[in-house]
Order: sequence, then C-alpha cells, then structure tokens
Amino acid sequence: VNRVLVTGGTGFIGRQTVEPLVRRGYEVHCVSSRAVLDADSSVRGMHFHRADLHDESAVRGLMSELTPSHLLHLAWYAEHGRFWTSPENLRWVESSLRLLRSFAETGGRRVVVAGSCAEYAWGERTVCREDETPLAPATLYGASKHALHLIAEPYCELTGVSLAWGRVFFVFGQGESTRRLGGSVASALVRGDPARCTHSEQVRDFLHCTDLGDAFAALLDSEVRGAVNLASGHPIRLRDLVTALGDAAGRPELVEFGALPASPGEPVELCADVSRLGRELGWAPSATLEERARETIAWWRTQPEGTEPPPAPSARVARS
Amino acid sequence: VNRVLVTGGTGFIGRQTVEPLVRRGYEVHCVSSRAVLDADSSVRGMHFHRADLHDESAVRGLMSELTPSHLLHLAWYAEHGRFWTSPENLRWVESSLRLLRSFAETGGRRVVVAGSCAEYAWGERTVCREDETPLAPATLYGASKHALHLIAEPYCELTGVSLAWGRVFFVFGQGESTRRLGGSVASALVRGDPARCTHSEQVRDFLHCTDLGDAFAALLDSEVRGAVNLASGHPIRLRDLVTALGDAAGRPELVEFGALPASPGEPVELCADVSRLGRELGWAPSATLEERARETIAWWRTQPEGTEPPPAPSARVARS
Repeated sequence: VNRVLVTGGTGFIGRQTVEPLVRRGYEVHCVSSRAVLDADSSVRGMHFHRADLHDESAVRGLMSELTPSHLLHLAWYAEHGRFWTSPENLRWVESSLRLLRSFAETGGRRVVVAGSCAEYAWGERTVCREDETPLAPATLYGASKHALHLIAEPYCELTGVSLAWGRVFFVFGQGESTRRLGGSVASALVRGDPARCTHSEQVRDFLHCTDLGDAFAALLDSEVRGAVNLASGHPIRLRDLVTALGDAAGRPELVEFGALPASPGEPVELCADVSRLGRELGWAPSATLEERARETIAWWRTQPEGTEPPPAPSARVARS
Repeated sequence: VNRVLVTGGTGFIGRQTVEPLVRRGYEVHCVSSRAVLDADSSVRGMHFHRADLHDESAVRGLMSELTPSHLLHLAWYAEHGRFWTSPENLRWVESSLRLLRSFAETGGRRVVVAGSCAEYAWGERTVCREDETPLAPATLYGASKHALHLIAEPYCELTGVSLAWGRVFFVFGQGESTRRLGGSVASALVRGDPARCTHSEQVRDFLHCTDLGDAFAALLDSEVRGAVNLASGHPIRLRDLVTALGDAAGRPELVEFGALPASPGEPVELCADVSRLGRELGWAPSATLEERARETIAWWRTQPEGTEPPPAPSARVARS
C-alpha cells in the first residue's frame, strides 16, 4: 500500500489533498501541531498525528512508526502579512531539511514539496515558466523556498528519492483566512457588509483550493520530477474574482472597488505557464471560476457569522 | 571591544585566522566540538569553547554568554572525498541557519561565512567572477553553501546584520590532511617516500592557509558586503605546487608525475577573478609560492614522522 504523510494536512490547502489522495488509493496520514477539528468534514478519511515538525525527535518517531512511501510537504509559516520577512522562514528550512533526511533514511520513495511563485524573479509583467524564468526571489520567503529546492534536488538524487516541486500561485476558497483577499471578500458578502477592495486590476493566476489539492495529489501520484507550476493557466484580474464572489452571493452592490489603496510596487501581471502541468501531468482545473465562487460562498454561509476558519497558520501555504 | 566567535576556529583554515584577528584588535573566541591541543601554537591568544554546533541549546548558551559583535563561520563537514555528496551538508545548513539566528538575536553586527568556488558553474575553463559567473553548483556541497547564502542575504538585510561571503578556492599548507594533495605530497617528501601524483596539469588558484586566514580576518574587519572570492589571482598548475614542495624539501627526484590516474571530468582550469578582493579590500597574499612551500615543509619536519595533523574534520573547509 502507498502510505503518504501530509504535513500541513489540516491547513487551507492540505485538507483539500486528503480526499483526492484517498481516491487515488493512498493511506493518508496528516501531521499538524494543532488538534484537528472533528467537525471538519474535509479531512475525513485520514489518520491524524499531532506533532511539532520543529521537534526533531517527534519527527523521527513519526517517520519510524509510519515508514511512509510518500511525503507531501505543505507545512510552512504562513501568517498573513508576516510570512514574507519572518525569521520563521529559516526555522522552516531547517525543519524541512530534517524532515527530508528522516523520510529518506526510513526508506521513503517519492516526495512533493510546496514551492511558490515567489521563487521567480517578478517583473512588472511576468509569465513564470519553470525552465526559463530566472529564479531570483525578492523576499526572504521566496529565497527560503528556492534554497530548500536547491538542496533537495541533489539530496534526493543521491538518496534515490523521486522529487517534484509544486510551485503554488494564488489560491482562494473555503477555509481561507479572512485576512486574505478571497476570505475577506467572501466573509463580508455573507455578513451583508461592504467588501472594500483596491482597484483590483492586477492580473494573477488563481486556483480554487480544492483544485490545488487535487493538483498536488495528481503530482504526488505521478512520476514527474522537478519544478511544476500548479496554476490554472487562465489569468484573471483580482476584480474578476471579487465580482464572481459578489454575483455568487447575490450581493454585487456590496463590492467597493478603489476603496483601499493598492500596495506600491506590486506586479501588474503575475501569471503561470502551465505547459508542464498540462502536457506531462494531464491536469487542468475541473470547474469554472463562477462554479468555484458559488461553492466558496456556500461554504461561508455554513459558518457562524463572521467566524474565522479553524486556525492553522503553521499548516497553511498562504498567498495574499 | 570587538568580540568575534570563530566556528571551526581550530581547523586547517580557522586556526590561521586567530593571529590576524588578534592583531586587528579582536577578542577571539573559538568554538569546536573537539578539544584543542595545547601544543598547537597557532591557536594561542584565543579563548576556546568546546561545543557541538549541531546542539541548538549549546549554541544559544554560548551566544548568550559571549554576545559576540562579530561571527566568522568556517565550520562545515569536510571529510575528504565524502563532503561533496554527504547528507552532513544538510545538517550543516540547518545548524548554520540556527547559528545565524542566534547571532542576530543576541545583537551581532557583522558576519563572514566561508563560501566555496563549488557554488559556481564549472566549465572546462572558468575564471569565476562574483557578479558574472552563473551560480549553478554541480554538487550537494556546492548547492548547500549556495542555498545558505541565498537565505543569509535577505535574513541579514532584514535583521540589520552586515554580511560578507568569502568564497574559498584551493588551499595548501601546514596542518593539511594527508589525504589532500598538498598534505599527501609534503608528508611523503619529508618521510623520504615517493610523492605519487597525477599528470598535475590542471590549473587552479591556490592560497596558502596563513594567507587565507589573513584574508578572512581582513574581510571580517572590513565593511565589504556580499560575495568575495578569496584567492591569489595567480593561477598555477598543480604541477607547480608539487614542484615547489619538492624543491623546498630538497627532494625533487621523489615526485612522480603521471603515477596516478586523473579524475575524469575534472575542469582543466578553475580560477578566480580577485578584483573585489584587491580593489575593495586592498588584500593580496604577502609571500611567494616558493616561500610558502618552504614554510609548509618546515612545519612538516616538526611533525612526528608520518603523523596526520590534529584531526578536526568538522572544522575544516577542505578543497581537494
């Protein structure tokens, strides 16, 4: 049996990988430093292990107990607004290297790690391509992810572990923090509050979190190696996402574009070339933006009004 | 007072940094996991601390106790023949990141780390230049050093620590392992044994270890930031080094070129552009190859016949 250990498996993205991995025949084990909530149906079907990934002996113990054949490493420090520059990035590089060593030493065969579009050099308009766009991260977060990849590649090569590196772009959907764009807009709309936004003309590649979870599962279950952009290949304006959420909520009049100042120096366009994802993995998202917006709003309607989703900052791979 | 903590301060290169640092007015503290030998005069004038740099609490304790203003981080795994591919490289990245965090958190101001020419992409003939030569390491060792630098740059920028990265090329001299070229030849010559070599036509940039120690001290004592090649700027053939040692020993007839096969795939020329070192630091080696060869042979003559120098593999920055 293929047994996968998912780090950050109870986070915003991680919880969406459980069902697609179970469907592909994996015995799914999730690890998080936070207790899982029984009420959370999206993580049904997995075995939960509570452990701190910064604790070397806890990680060694878990690896020896489970001897997973597969590892899906999504956990990272992702506190909104802070993760770009936090020293926590160094701790996550340290703990990720230890995790990787422990996995290889207990006989692990296949690993997928969450990379980021922040590893690429960002121009004013960039279509990021795995084998062409310079890897020149402008932030400590991007540098830390890129550096981890630089070490993981030769280490996995030497230890006979198959490695793929899934670069995450922009994500929205159920369970998102209300301090991020999608969560902020969706939660305001279902409360009946104004959804205050910037001009929102920036062009980005967005995936819904259930699609990203499925893409990670597909990548893990494949033999594709190296860096792969995990994105839709259909760039939209932030405005398009917000409008879709407003329409899905039936409250488009609550959206206020231009009410907030845009961050200076933000790229105008930041998109993904998805040739590898499509050609080598045969993967594409399975639903339209409008369908995903309706699904997102429906989930927010099930939440106690104004409530933040279950907190798991150390287990999220957030992008603002 | 400027107080410097030197990691690997009792190793092949580290011990040569003590006198030049003391001369520049530093209070010098060395840390190593191995006991220092009283007999070793080259490390006089420093305060010795025995601690394992892989032990997080030991490192935190040392930093809190000393609160060094300066850090010279030379320690790494350098077991000859193994260090290129060893998983120990991952442990040293982990421990180096922890060391850096601990240094910054206790108020450290200036750090110099030992990088390597192995961070550069090596062609058949390469003159490595800091701002031009692609950083595309072919080995786990080179990737680990380069990755550490990638993280250290933005981390130091964010924490207000001044960082320079001294890229080491090829080194010879007293205290060298007999499993490396210089140590193998010099020890054979003083024993009166044949010094068996390859064709030795490869062109490299060599520094004597006392020059490299002085270059590290000069770099630490400067305000120069970023990557700096630490090399002579005068490439020689391996043959020239071996011949200088043979002449210094008065036994040139013991040298046997072509007695050993050369490693396949080795670069023909691997040299350093030393413009930054000369222009911004005003540093150049202070003696000729012949003088340094005589100094090296004189040291070997003081050693009990055939004896390996004091072992400190975790504290050496070796290049074969």
